[in-house]
Amino acid sequence: MNTYRFEKSQSLYERAQQVIPKGVYGHYGMAVSGTECPIYFSNAQGATVRDVDDNEFIDYMCAYGPMIVGYQNPVVDEAARKQLEKGDTVMLISPVMIELAEALVETVSIADWAFFAKNGGDVTNLAAMVAKAATGRKKIVKVAGGYHGVAPWMQSTGAPGTITEDQHHIISVNWNAPEEFEKAIKDHPGEIAGFISSPYHHPVLEDNVLPENGYWQKIESLCRKNNIVLIVDDVRAGFRINLQGSNEAYGFKPDLICFGKGLGNGYPISALVGTDALKDAVSSVFCTGTMFFGSAPMAAALATLGELKRLDAAKTMSNIGLKLNAGLVKVADGHGFKLKVSGVPAMPYFRIEDDESFQIQTTWIAECVKRGAYFLTYHNHFLSTAHTDEHLSRTWDIADDAFKAVKQILGS
Amino acid sequence: MNTYRFEKSQSLYERAQQVIPKGVYGHYGMAVSGTECPIYFSNAQGATVRDVDDNEFIDYMCAYGPMIVGYQNPVVDEAARKQLEKGDTVMLISPVMIELAEALVETVSIADWAFFAKNGGDVTNLAAMVAKAATGRKKIVKVAGGYHGVAPWMQSTGAPGTITEDQHHIISVNWNAPEEFEKAIKDHPGEIAGFISSPYHHPVLEDNVLPENGYWQKIESLCRKNNIVLIVDDVRAGFRINLQGSNEAYGFKPDLICFGKGLGNGYPISALVGTDALKDAVSSVFCTGTMFFGSAPMAAALATLGELKRLDAAKTMSNIGLKLNAGLVKVADGHGFKLKVSGVPAMPYFRIEDDESFQIQTTWIAECVKRGAYFLTYHNHFLSTAHTDEHLSRTWDIADDAFKAVKQILGS
Repeated sequence: MNTYRFEKSQSLYERAQQVIPKGVYGHYGMAVSGTECPIYFSNAQGATVRDVDDNEFIDYMCAYGPMIVGYQNPVVDEAARKQLEKGDTVMLISPVMIELAEALVETVSIADWAFFAKNGGDVTNLAAMVAKAATGRKKIVKVAGGYHGVAPWMQSTGAPGTITEDQHHIISVNWNAPEEFEKAIKDHPGEIAGFISSPYHHPVLEDNVLPENGYWQKIESLCRKNNIVLIVDDVRAGFRINLQGSNEAYGFKPDLICFGKGLGNGYPISALVGTDALKDAVSSVFCTGTMFFGSAPMAAALATLGELKRLDAAKTMSNIGLKLNAGLVKVADGHGFKLKVSGVPAMPYFRIEDDESFQIQTTWIAECVKRGAYFLTYHNHFLSTAHTDEHLSRTWDIADDAFKAVKQILGS
Repeated sequence: MNTYRFEKSQSLYERAQQVIPKGVYGHYGMAVSGTECPIYFSNAQGATVRDVDDNEFIDYMCAYGPMIVGYQNPVVDEAARKQLEKGDTVMLISPVMIELAEALVETVSIADWAFFAKNGGDVTNLAAMVAKAATGRKKIVKVAGGYHGVAPWMQSTGAPGTITEDQHHIISVNWNAPEEFEKAIKDHPGEIAGFISSPYHHPVLEDNVLPENGYWQKIESLCRKNNIVLIVDDVRAGFRINLQGSNEAYGFKPDLICFGKGLGNGYPISALVGTDALKDAVSSVFCTGTMFFGSAPMAAALATLGELKRLDAAKTMSNIGLKLNAGLVKVADGHGFKLKVSGVPAMPYFRIEDDESFQIQTTWIAECVKRGAYFLTYHNHFLSTAHTDEHLSRTWDIADDAFKAVKQILGS
């Protein structure tokens, strides 16, 4: 199999470093590793992306989640285009905002209302503020290793640009350890405003972990008993597990759910939804942004929700994921490697077992990328409804050839 | 003159309240006053907006700033459309990001690099983090009444959802009072990381105030002497005073400038630009968002910058503003009212003098809105390059008729 070269990406990257911090910053920057990866795209279509060096990739990151019904999805793009022709960000509001709120209230089981913003971090931050406004308390409990955006209070202690005071009222507990949450409640009686967590644990550089049986019920019950606002950060997993909210898969009801990523199929929109009990609290918090009222992303999100329903998307993506993952495990096995797949089927995290140094993992994934299957070493992946059987078999072939290359590079 | 009715807007507003907190939240919510205002639009074009009741308005809010070269600007929309056809938010980056960063570095005098986000608040928050990372200090000095977004540390003490600790390291000083900044430095030696302010003072519900002679030079000199990072929040005024940065009009050089609003003519994008001295600091801060890398808004911003230059936009908008404002003052004078215009010409704040209760102000502006000139009582306005002489004379006629109505309603 021929392997790709990334000369044009590299040359643009060098140019970028002159005028952009690090050349590529944020989560996109984490994916830039030396000279052996694509950085700049020329075109994205369906489940594939073409880079500036004219290499084609099957994209298993889906823009880190937003792409959920395919790049250039005609239904979504047409809805956005039509709205753009009326107006996007205007000094008044588009009626599509109401339609979208109604659609979310109809779709998401706990939702009585919806508030729209741009990024997941806008609404995780708002959710914490709502919890504080509703309870008059100061502390937020989160899960260690959980990611809820870049607001200083959500960053790790000592992170550049943050100060210790930012995290003073943040309490971290371990995933699947409700007894730690119980202890935090005992240690800080009447002080905890909210508990925030993704529906399952998807940290970076680690196996992803599903909730143990009874975990969420225990958390829910502790929240109810102690009037703590239960917040699900469904920004990453939203619509890839259950369209009604990922909590439905685990049998509990949060008070607030944060959505982002898949909501607009790449158009910039996020949403906080919640129960009527918190409508006064959310109404009392001043939260806004110049671009929060842009209506093209709202039209895109409405169309995306329609497509997700029509395609029975959560189930469809789970099935595609199960197939992809099983195939990759089999390919790995054929070369004597154990590929551990963790997380939910539509958002698999891959790890080669017995590879403490991550050397096999890193090499294998780099060789996959060089052959056209875009994986990342440290992050869960994403599937979309645009991934087809043909993509999967091409991926298995690529994975097979990449394992051969691993043996050549590292010795067998 | 016939006056407008807003029945369809009202009916949609009632529907919205079922599924959206307050029906309309944030800064858009502040504009919703009873039954006598438009809330929902059907179409926006150039400098005019048509509402769902089929009333047409000359828009002097420009979507609260973003619209700067006209709604549906063909050059900007074509650039965004072309990029959308390649891909918007993808798992790789578009080369247009580099072109836009280069264009900002070329245009904005102090800029050696650019970082892109979605809203102004994303980059004011990042700017404060950069100041802390660069100095290892904790405190930020801001101007009382200044607005820099909704992050808890920027909200007022006691605002719902915030806690006192959020503002613990924020020091407020009055506008045009460099001696207060000097005192803050003396009171907190070696503790102040950054000073953040808009280039001139544009609070709500008050006359806007330009910097006094020597004000910015004194602030700049205090920052230099004490190694404090000088941040200009140009989110609102950016590109409407001077394309090179509003600071150029006032003869000083900040370390960081925050842009938003006008940058993308309504496409969601904001930017932090800064000097090389802070490139390491900004690179050290982890700041990102799922939607920060969307390339259609970047293409739109690049095209907007091109149009702004081609049209000598800052000067053009200032001239339109001077003309509009002078005409309105004359119309008011004809009715025995003194209209005070404050702020820069392209962003006028209007206030009727000798009207302590704001009753004349509120009534006059409501009557203008009901005749098709969209003004707000409490906020500065915005002009764009799409406002024409024809718009201005229509506006003067509307203002004239509105003053007649004021006299009828309030007695003369």
